[in-house]
Amino acid sequence: MHIDIITIHPPLLESPFSHSILKRAATKNLVSVNVIDLRPYGIEPHRKTDDYAFGGGAGMIMMIEPIANCINELKEKRSYDEIIFMTPDGETLTQKTCNHLSTLKNIMVLCGHYKGIDERLREHFITKEISIGDYVLSGGELPAAVMCDAIIRLIPGVLNDETSALSDSFQDNLLSPPVYTRPADYNGWKVPDILLSGHQKKIDEWRHEQALERTKIRRPDLL
Amino acid sequence: MHIDIITIHPPLLESPFSHSILKRAATKNLVSVNVIDLRPYGIEPHRKTDDYAFGGGAGMIMMIEPIANCINELKEKRSYDEIIFMTPDGETLTQKTCNHLSTLKNIMVLCGHYKGIDERLREHFITKEISIGDYVLSGGELPAAVMCDAIIRLIPGVLNDETSALSDSFQDNLLSPPVYTRPADYNGWKVPDILLSGHQKKIDEWRHEQALERTKIRRPDLL
Repeated sequence: MHIDIITIHPPLLESPFSHSILKRAATKNLVSVNVIDLRPYGIEPHRKTDDYAFGGGAGMIMMIEPIANCINELKEKRSYDEIIFMTPDGETLTQKTCNHLSTLKNIMVLCGHYKGIDERLREHFITKEISIGDYVLSGGELPAAVMCDAIIRLIPGVLNDETSALSDSFQDNLLSPPVYTRPADYNGWKVPDILLSGHQKKIDEWRHEQALERTKIRRPDLL
Repeated sequence: MHIDIITIHPPLLESPFSHSILKRAATKNLVSVNVIDLRPYGIEPHRKTDDYAFGGGAGMIMMIEPIANCINELKEKRSYDEIIFMTPDGETLTQKTCNHLSTLKNIMVLCGHYKGIDERLREHFITKEISIGDYVLSGGELPAAVMCDAIIRLIPGVLNDETSALSDSFQDNLLSPPVYTRPADYNGWKVPDILLSGHQKKIDEWRHEQALERTKIRRPDLL
């Protein structure tokens, strides 16, 4: 998979992609992530990428021209399955969407900033608009990193133990059951006996019950 | 506001807090963010912070002892309004929660990893569990950065133009209306005439209608 991310703040995306699982995925050549600085596409003489909103009001708008030129240049080199704009009014990201996106070959991701991007970009270039949740952030970089993390870890070979991703929350519409590790007794707080019983069938049943119970209490909407 | 973030991967949190709005907030002394490396609290001789799950199964569990010791040490220095665990089965983060959290004084944030943390930590130390959305990530660091960004930008004085945050999506349960900036005509794609009319009252009405319309189509659940 190849991911191009367009941003006016490339340094914001440095650490998420240079550590942990995302780095390992790149090292194994399972994914290549290319962060593209929008600034060189800005309008001269000051390489401007934003301007005041038509109709007035607080906050700047990202201009159509620099982004259109950047997207067009990228499209000359690759054919994209999706050109995604990270925006709070997009389709809310779910594990199902992540599963689908993880099967694609080339993705372009545009990070918004300020009060948003010129609407004409959304009409003519963007193929998918995604929100990571119902809250407002200072830019699309963290959402882009979140979405990439959620997608990349699903690519076969990225996680060391593939059964691990399959038993995550949401993959079966259930939250995960409680988990425990050593010591079995910490300050008198004990691990449930069943988990120490060695009786795998009963343990699996207990876990399923707990997952169901937790989902009923915390997220009945998932059932 | 003071925020302590406990993590086994401190470098993952470097770039979000050293750029853009989060950096500006710290420079203005409006917030201090302290990233705490969990590793020194690990169990000797190898400073282990995770172990296999009781009852078997794929994936490692973060141990109770290192985290409990770290939290207890921090609590000796400060009184915390909330000790938050970032987890996919937590309460889903909303703008309303962000508004509330932005008024607190001291917050501790614990980033989970692998298959989660020992349940006894959740029972005895954590006061709030937050999920940034219904998808699984490789760790709690990006979610912690997302939550901090959403909170910190709401602290008075952080954004240059405070009316800007008030007109964001979700603050009035409406998505934002479309926005446009120069040029008024790009490749024949034109800005709506009303926005060029200079008639502020009509522009405001148009924007409200558009916001309502967009919310109806995209997110009727918000109305």
